Amino acid sequence: MKAVGIIVEYNPFHNGHLHHAEQARKASGADLVIAVMSGQFLQRGEPAFTDKWLRTQMALDAGIDLVIELPYVYATAQASDFAKGGIALLDAIGCSSFCFGSEQGTIEPFSNSLHLLKEREDDYQQLIHKAIGTGISYPKALNNAYTILTANQTHFADLTQPNNILGFHYIEAAENLGSSMQPLTIQRIGANYHDPINVEMPIASATGIREAFFKGDSPDKLSAFMPESSIILLNKAQTEYGVFGSWEQFYSLLRFVILRDGPEKLKQYAEVTEGIENLIYQSAKTEKNFESFISCVKSKRFTRTRIQRMLTHIYTGFTWRLLRSFDAPSYIRLLGMSNTGKRYLNHNKKNIELPLISRAADLNDSMGKLDIHATTLYLQGMGSVDFKKEFTTPPIYRD
Amino acid sequence: MKAVGIIVEYNPFHNGHLHHAEQARKASGADLVIAVMSGQFLQRGEPAFTDKWLRTQMALDAGIDLVIELPYVYATAQASDFAKGGIALLDAIGCSSFCFGSEQGTIEPFSNSLHLLKEREDDYQQLIHKAIGTGISYPKALNNAYTILTANQTHFADLTQPNNILGFHYIEAAENLGSSMQPLTIQRIGANYHDPINVEMPIASATGIREAFFKGDSPDKLSAFMPESSIILLNKAQTEYGVFGSWEQFYSLLRFVILRDGPEKLKQYAEVTEGIENLIYQSAKTEKNFESFISCVKSKRFTRTRIQRMLTHIYTGFTWRLLRSFDAPSYIRLLGMSNTGKRYLNHNKKNIELPLISRAADLNDSMGKLDIHATTLYLQGMGSVDFKKEFTTPPIYRD
Repeated sequence: MKAVGIIVEYNPFHNGHLHHAEQARKASGADLVIAVMSGQFLQRGEPAFTDKWLRTQMALDAGIDLVIELPYVYATAQASDFAKGGIALLDAIGCSSFCFGSEQGTIEPFSNSLHLLKEREDDYQQLIHKAIGTGISYPKALNNAYTILTANQTHFADLTQPNNILGFHYIEAAENLGSSMQPLTIQRIGANYHDPINVEMPIASATGIREAFFKGDSPDKLSAFMPESSIILLNKAQTEYGVFGSWEQFYSLLRFVILRDGPEKLKQYAEVTEGIENLIYQSAKTEKNFESFISCVKSKRFTRTRIQRMLTHIYTGFTWRLLRSFDAPSYIRLLGMSNTGKRYLNHNKKNIELPLISRAADLNDSMGKLDIHATTLYLQGMGSVDFKKEFTTPPIYRD
Repeated sequence: MKAVGIIVEYNPFHNGHLHHAEQARKASGADLVIAVMSGQFLQRGEPAFTDKWLRTQMALDAGIDLVIELPYVYATAQASDFAKGGIALLDAIGCSSFCFGSEQGTIEPFSNSLHLLKEREDDYQQLIHKAIGTGISYPKALNNAYTILTANQTHFADLTQPNNILGFHYIEAAENLGSSMQPLTIQRIGANYHDPINVEMPIASATGIREAFFKGDSPDKLSAFMPESSIILLNKAQTEYGVFGSWEQFYSLLRFVILRDGPEKLKQYAEVTEGIENLIYQSAKTEKNFESFISCVKSKRFTRTRIQRMLTHIYTGFTWRLLRSFDAPSYIRLLGMSNTGKRYLNHNKKNIELPLISRAADLNDSMGKLDIHATTLYLQGMGSVDFKKEFTTPPIYRD
């Protein structure tokens, strides 16, 4: 059986995700689609809209065959480490290809860009260094350097586009890993990542969908943009938790730990650098809601996403020291499977390079314990008082 | 002007406290009563029933002339350090005597006990060591050792009684300080500290009164046991916060930081010793309310009070390291004054040995910043989102 891998968050699952999975299956000619999905905290440094089990169920209902978890340490990392974790897991579980959505839409420009940057590594680093000197953010500096190197040449990927950037890192990670997986990309259609919802388009961004929920639109109103099963599951999530995950919802706990720890302890947490802990601490003192808080902290140099990743690590108490102790993924955590996914695992078990974990109780190393830890703190942010769900939820099976 | 000092918590202020203040004034022949009062966290390791400003107002309304704050580091410490801080402040502000309530009721037995223990220091330490070896708690071990040394002799204080123990430490602290303050004691009347409320007695314990509040009895129902002004102020507190302070109220935040930090970090907090951090962590995982949590953690060796002090320090993030950096009080924080209290300060300002602080902004050292810190986290536990009260509340003046 031939599998294609995709790297996803499904926050929440919508028509754009359905399109991506269907096109990945088509482009690869694979028998099944394997998704490596972030757990309770996401790449933009945010708590997930709803928990990983509900999001797994959405994926299975929409035709994904296997859902495995991207461990916290990768799921909340900047693009290159996020990609490294996702690609390593897809490779370990035996995918013959992986497929990502991009603004670019074809794969060659990515390979061209990767090889250009390898060949001109020194020039690239010098340009980045120079750009950072002007006070701009790291992602912007990368971008400036890259733009100079590729000026007036059309056969390179446009790395000003968010999905192209991620795609570039997937290909880079696969190459560094020496993976034999074939890289594929499909053209993204519909809304851009940050577009608010547009009722005349069948595909809306996850951001737009979440905003519509927070504004109080009923899930049914969103049925143009999501599979019906996603709507049903979001209704279920609302019944279970009474809320959806967001920093606004988690702010009272986040604020408490910021104020309790103070700047000296804050700088021990992963990604907290360059004295930003003082601004984080001072802003938490005065700001009563998350939006006003983040407005005080973010800047040209420290983007919202970068700050949010720091906040995620402050929230979970995840230190630089622990971050530096990790390298490659050490297990494959199975969150859900279709009948086809189950058959795939049965046929391929012996070829899977990492321990396949079905029960949280078997997560014995520090990377796995961190996932359990993140779930406990996520559930508390969602207002739960019972934190056993990680141990009582078996992989979800969909016939 | 002659001042008598008392060391109090007023959690909340009731008739027993009124009796104590009146008798202290009478026994000392002083012109005014100065109370050193704990701030937002108390000696049994609990958040205060209501904030220090409301409790200051209660004290002033009931005739106390000056209220100064016992810093967090002493207010939340075991008896000997609690006493050390309180006595040092009363001495520094110029009291000529101090007066405590005791089961004993006369002062000589305390002096006798103090001198006995000084003379027989080595025997005493050996007996304590032996007692601890049997697995009992430290306070119990002290008690056993003392009982053996004083067997069949009636001129020593009975140190099985909680208020006698505190009184003993006051006298010890005054002697160690070389203070010229005269020690005085009055007989405690009415309910014991732990008695539930008894409607036929005019004096009820603060514990009993708090329980009645948590059960939902209206403040007016308690008017037999408290000055009318205390009732009015507790009504005001309820309007301001909507809740009263308790570990049950603070448990969701406490639980979050326990689960976030984990055993390795927990043992860095003051008073956390001997592996108890593992039990604290495991119990927080499963227990959904504070009472069931504390039931899991407390034992013969680790009393409820001792555990609660650890929890207070975990809640505030107060480390062993910071604790060890403190010695004597470094300032006198003025919380409130009557007209007489104001005159006293005007006459005696030059003789007061420590800086007299009226505004939180002037608390510049780490001991003072810790008080501000404790207030911020206390207010968050009380459900506030505005933490400026420490800076916007001047000393309360009562004409």
